[in-house]
Amino acid sequence: MIERLAIIGVGLIGGSLARALRGAGCVGEIIGCGRSAENLELAFDLGVIDGCTRDPAVAVEGADMVFIAVPLGAMRGVFERIHGSLREDAVITDGGSVKGSVVADAAAAFGRVPARLVPGHPIAGTEHSGVAASFPELYHNRRVILTPLPQTDSDAVDKVRAMWQAAGAEVTEMDVAHHDAVLAATSHLPHMLAFGLVDLLARQQDNAEIFRYAAGGFRDFTRIASSSPVMWRDICIANAEALSAMLARFGEEMTDLADTIRRGDDAHLLEIFTRAKAARDAYVDGVQGTTGSVRNERS
Amino acid sequence: MIERLAIIGVGLIGGSLARALRGAGCVGEIIGCGRSAENLELAFDLGVIDGCTRDPAVAVEGADMVFIAVPLGAMRGVFERIHGSLREDAVITDGGSVKGSVVADAAAAFGRVPARLVPGHPIAGTEHSGVAASFPELYHNRRVILTPLPQTDSDAVDKVRAMWQAAGAEVTEMDVAHHDAVLAATSHLPHMLAFGLVDLLARQQDNAEIFRYAAGGFRDFTRIASSSPVMWRDICIANAEALSAMLARFGEEMTDLADTIRRGDDAHLLEIFTRAKAARDAYVDGVQGTTGSVRNERS
Repeated sequence: MIERLAIIGVGLIGGSLARALRGAGCVGEIIGCGRSAENLELAFDLGVIDGCTRDPAVAVEGADMVFIAVPLGAMRGVFERIHGSLREDAVITDGGSVKGSVVADAAAAFGRVPARLVPGHPIAGTEHSGVAASFPELYHNRRVILTPLPQTDSDAVDKVRAMWQAAGAEVTEMDVAHHDAVLAATSHLPHMLAFGLVDLLARQQDNAEIFRYAAGGFRDFTRIASSSPVMWRDICIANAEALSAMLARFGEEMTDLADTIRRGDDAHLLEIFTRAKAARDAYVDGVQGTTGSVRNERS
Repeated sequence: MIERLAIIGVGLIGGSLARALRGAGCVGEIIGCGRSAENLELAFDLGVIDGCTRDPAVAVEGADMVFIAVPLGAMRGVFERIHGSLREDAVITDGGSVKGSVVADAAAAFGRVPARLVPGHPIAGTEHSGVAASFPELYHNRRVILTPLPQTDSDAVDKVRAMWQAAGAEVTEMDVAHHDAVLAATSHLPHMLAFGLVDLLARQQDNAEIFRYAAGGFRDFTRIASSSPVMWRDICIANAEALSAMLARFGEEMTDLADTIRRGDDAHLLEIFTRAKAARDAYVDGVQGTTGSVRNERS
């Protein structure tokens, strides 16, 4: 049971957690904090939060659990602001898509990484933003990865794990660098390709016609290009090393594939496509096997 | 009204057209032809076709409309085989994703492109193959592009247009080279990226873990990597010039983007992502505006 939950950033991620915990009946009071007064008011009107402030230092006063769900570029500023106002036993966690940068930001703001900070990452979301897009089932059967450090308080980890489980998620642990490498491959790289493809086509001279004849596969493929540009700029900067390495490698492979096509090497093309189809089909079978429902998954 | 329709290749595309036309009550008899006896039997058992043969020359005997829906690599062989068996007034059309290669194959097989051949391309499909995956609504509100040549018989074009309209599609016309350039951008390039991404990740050492932590965005993004490898090998070979040029350019842009990320050029990243999001959001609005329903679209 959380007595008083402070949510810094009441958007899709923060708002959905608030709704889920409220639905599960395992939270007393929820204080929301954000930069947009309009979004906070909407969150209050929707009953997602019980009170609000635009100052993180005020929001965390008396809170036993603090969840930070702001773009990665705003993390350090939030840590600096809440530093002096936290209850001694407060547990802090976050929803950032990159964990190395969050740990570094906390170390910079607090002088060292607090023992009661449990870096976390819910593998969930949609291409929409803001509290209006939040919904209580966002985390149902979704994975949340926690990346505690050796010095992290195990009681704090237990509390964060219990919170996410109450929201319906499956919680696993991973070390920080490994998390960032895995997410570079499975999430950050695909987002770069979707943004890059749409941007390339938008810059074509006959782009209106190109988009007119795009089929549903294109829509699915590019859905993630409708995600928040600020959030993704911050993810790129925060996970620059792992992501730029994956992306450079992918760029080279596409240049090679272009050459394979130009040369008409049909055996090599068939080999690539067959291997990819087998891996993708196995992935879908795996998802259906572990979560029971593929349809429920979003982003 | 079509008296006798010969469908060469009774898979997702051919089977769905048969079901749609049967449902619309505008076809007499449907003869199916394919290489797999098992698939043909299933098509017959499902009532998709009224009769079947594995010989295209036999299938087209007496047919007033011939629809060829085989992988592009098999087109020329089919043209050669049916050449001597066609009714003089038979209209021939196809469902190939590249039109330049179909026209070249017809010219090679017939000596010149037949005046009653109307090259066509339904912009529809799913990642599944075979008659079992076919369904009568596949073409509802989907675009079909016809690419008649200057010498194409206008009566033949009218008949093919009417056939697709009866199946629920919106029919437009385009010239051959333009079709192949537009489709390289909107369909063939995205498929290469999806195949390439899944293949890259499948070759990573920790690929099991990578796929385990992939979220729904990854599933949507890579859905088209489950498409038929043979069909896509043939599309690459058939549209090699336009596709390899787009793909090489995309590869270069991803290499540049990797460099932008490595340099931490946050302003440039935000510019790219903002432009892409705007184009993608506008595209979705456009799709919703013209078809009335986005959810109905598949591939």
